[in-house]
Amino acid sequence: MSVLNHNHVTPLSSSSSAIFAKNTFTGVRSQIVSVSSKKAGVCKCVATSPAEQTAYKTKVSRNGNIAKLQAGYLFPEIGRRKAAHMLKYPDAQVISLGIGDTTEPIPEVITSAMAKRALGLSTIEGYTGYGAEQGEKQLRAQLASTFYSNLGIEEDDIFVSDGAKSDISRLQVLFGSNVTMAVQDPSYPAYVDSSVIIGQTGEFQKDIEKFGNIEYMKCTPENDFFPDLSKVSRTDIIFFCSPNNPTGSAASREQLTKLVNFAKDNGSIIIYDSAYAMYVSGDTPKSIFEIPGAKEVAIETASFSKYAGFTGVRLGWTVVPKELKYSDGFPVAKDFNRIVCTGFNGASNIAQAGGLACLSPEGLQAMHEVVGFYKENTKIIVDTFTSLGFTVYGGIHAPYVWVHFPGRSSWDVFSEILEKTHVVTTPGSGFGPAGEGFVRVSAFGHRNNVLEACRRFKELYK
Amino acid sequence: MSVLNHNHVTPLSSSSSAIFAKNTFTGVRSQIVSVSSKKAGVCKCVATSPAEQTAYKTKVSRNGNIAKLQAGYLFPEIGRRKAAHMLKYPDAQVISLGIGDTTEPIPEVITSAMAKRALGLSTIEGYTGYGAEQGEKQLRAQLASTFYSNLGIEEDDIFVSDGAKSDISRLQVLFGSNVTMAVQDPSYPAYVDSSVIIGQTGEFQKDIEKFGNIEYMKCTPENDFFPDLSKVSRTDIIFFCSPNNPTGSAASREQLTKLVNFAKDNGSIIIYDSAYAMYVSGDTPKSIFEIPGAKEVAIETASFSKYAGFTGVRLGWTVVPKELKYSDGFPVAKDFNRIVCTGFNGASNIAQAGGLACLSPEGLQAMHEVVGFYKENTKIIVDTFTSLGFTVYGGIHAPYVWVHFPGRSSWDVFSEILEKTHVVTTPGSGFGPAGEGFVRVSAFGHRNNVLEACRRFKELYK
Repeated sequence: MSVLNHNHVTPLSSSSSAIFAKNTFTGVRSQIVSVSSKKAGVCKCVATSPAEQTAYKTKVSRNGNIAKLQAGYLFPEIGRRKAAHMLKYPDAQVISLGIGDTTEPIPEVITSAMAKRALGLSTIEGYTGYGAEQGEKQLRAQLASTFYSNLGIEEDDIFVSDGAKSDISRLQVLFGSNVTMAVQDPSYPAYVDSSVIIGQTGEFQKDIEKFGNIEYMKCTPENDFFPDLSKVSRTDIIFFCSPNNPTGSAASREQLTKLVNFAKDNGSIIIYDSAYAMYVSGDTPKSIFEIPGAKEVAIETASFSKYAGFTGVRLGWTVVPKELKYSDGFPVAKDFNRIVCTGFNGASNIAQAGGLACLSPEGLQAMHEVVGFYKENTKIIVDTFTSLGFTVYGGIHAPYVWVHFPGRSSWDVFSEILEKTHVVTTPGSGFGPAGEGFVRVSAFGHRNNVLEACRRFKELYK
Repeated sequence: MSVLNHNHVTPLSSSSSAIFAKNTFTGVRSQIVSVSSKKAGVCKCVATSPAEQTAYKTKVSRNGNIAKLQAGYLFPEIGRRKAAHMLKYPDAQVISLGIGDTTEPIPEVITSAMAKRALGLSTIEGYTGYGAEQGEKQLRAQLASTFYSNLGIEEDDIFVSDGAKSDISRLQVLFGSNVTMAVQDPSYPAYVDSSVIIGQTGEFQKDIEKFGNIEYMKCTPENDFFPDLSKVSRTDIIFFCSPNNPTGSAASREQLTKLVNFAKDNGSIIIYDSAYAMYVSGDTPKSIFEIPGAKEVAIETASFSKYAGFTGVRLGWTVVPKELKYSDGFPVAKDFNRIVCTGFNGASNIAQAGGLACLSPEGLQAMHEVVGFYKENTKIIVDTFTSLGFTVYGGIHAPYVWVHFPGRSSWDVFSEILEKTHVVTTPGSGFGPAGEGFVRVSAFGHRNNVLEACRRFKELYK
């Protein structure tokens, strides 16, 4: 369904704004034909002439920043190719280890709390209307004590959201178009795309596959997937995801200390995406706020999606410490609160009841079991590619395996694997130019599907 | 709880940007004290000196657009005053007819569907992860057939959201900072505030209580609450809410036809907020798309909040017809889809199950009963103020009663009513300068509270 929905509206791919405009216009003309034909039955009930319906354009200019975006957002594009493959091979048992969507049922201790809250909404005592835009007090307090107990993060530093992806956009609105930003290369595409949309970047430079005015911090095996900060220019904002999507690598305490000091020296703000923190084991930090001084330079965004299978339920949170200040001394949290109050009305109260259940002793135990299951999947995938002689990264502190195909095009490998094994992966170059030559294999899948996919990988690459 | 959450973070009120900056700085200094004192226990676990913690500022400039905003968002401000009143009169039975929050339980046919979906997420068959960013296909199809059956709006024109407020912000991101916009005066404050945040406006002009570069379309009894379009300058975007919040008036077919023709002549795009459409009776249009040609000039945003009591569940939708085009012919829907895919991951799947239940025959019947109940409340409030000799507007096609207090300050009347009757209303001037001299009384309340509030009004104004 998702695929079908994306299909008709994903913008055309293009190699430059100029060509984009041209393609677009062709696209529009062809659309007009289909639209006008669809209209036949509609004209009866809206008394306008067909001419009026097909020819009219407003005088509103298209947002030039959006026009800079290349092709579609990565994951809908993957979905589109999966759909095309399924049309080509209707009988194939396609296995998706692509977009990183959770597959295992949500533990009952969590869904029963959501069901109870939902049914309670039909009672006078249980009914609640608008909640706090920042989230329910009890959930914020529980998040603070569960994840930041001795880190000096308090209830009122935490903003509950409908997910990290939404908060990344709200953070871009918060900072606006006049800031400069850096991203890990490769990285989760929403950072760059949302930066382009809000107007922080230049045009896409096809030759180097980068947008102007974004600092791409190369993360490769050569630098242990941690950027060489001596070569990174100062930016206002630094997006940093650890454990990393897509490389699966997690920055060490020493590396994160370097990052925080780098931000402090430059007066930059780190937006730390910790969506996979529960996959971390050992002394590797689970929160940027484990690093001394981080509260003055970092925002942390997090999510229940990959812990409790909440990808469809939608619940996350963002920490904006009151110690974080703009150059004029104004607290960033006050402006973020204004953004949240003006453009958001809080996460669904039913999802928040689920979040609270996630943080109960039983809920935490259940989430750890879900995470443990996916980590076993990860080990199976890592072992498979290793046994086939591939060099493999990640897969220890994250549900992603970053497989190296030296000298090959990521999209070619993606297509080869899909064509020959009916397994959907994600091409590394979709996450940035430094992802070229890699493929991301997600560990989110039913066990039998992961085993079957690995069997097919062994067939293909034996 | 909401109130408490807002309390500590609502930006300081101010009368101009200059003063705002000054107040702010004081605010920050005082905050620094409290922060550093709070820190004592924290310093033990993060090895940084108190000095470092209190003195540090990043080099990131505050977003100048957000600095233009005045005081806090209106409704948190109302909440703050309500909280202060409750502290002053701890024993008072405070009745809130202020922020327009629903109070009646959600019909069981709807909550049972949400509970079922929630429990289903614990099963292999019932589990779903990421849904389509645009909403579930079945819900989009049902919305199209229920509300737009013969209006030429199709499933793929509809984007399901977590509520109209969120979609208003996404629409501002869609159009960006280079468009001009018009709003009804008075109007729902999120239109103006989100426009300020995205950078479409000038500074706030204290003398006229308006932001620069926004066209305020005066809606008063003199013009039947419909703007004199001959005096309205052309803008790219026209926000128009009908039935209107706060005035409670609904535009007639003839008036909306004038509006659509005005937009068409100017090449403008109407963002039509129809959140109260189910409160409309008779021939008054429930959708802008009932007006011929509207699909080429209008976007419609809608919500389940005021029909099914979903203010806390969070579910709405926005219609962007494929016929709506930018000046270069590019379909607006394609860019909105890109915004939705990049910065949103769909509404909660549990809320969407509730939405689908809302649109079943039983659900529709149940929603009509909820709407009918609030409409009865409205009549009680209208009759009360009328019997007291007040001139009252709205209250027929909307759950809001717009009471005229000629020559008086809205905030004074708000305070008088709160102080003497312990009833929370909303001052008309909070919705724009043309709201001065009016108070909005919301019909969202338990019947006994509405009756008791009306009894107190009669006491006060007899």
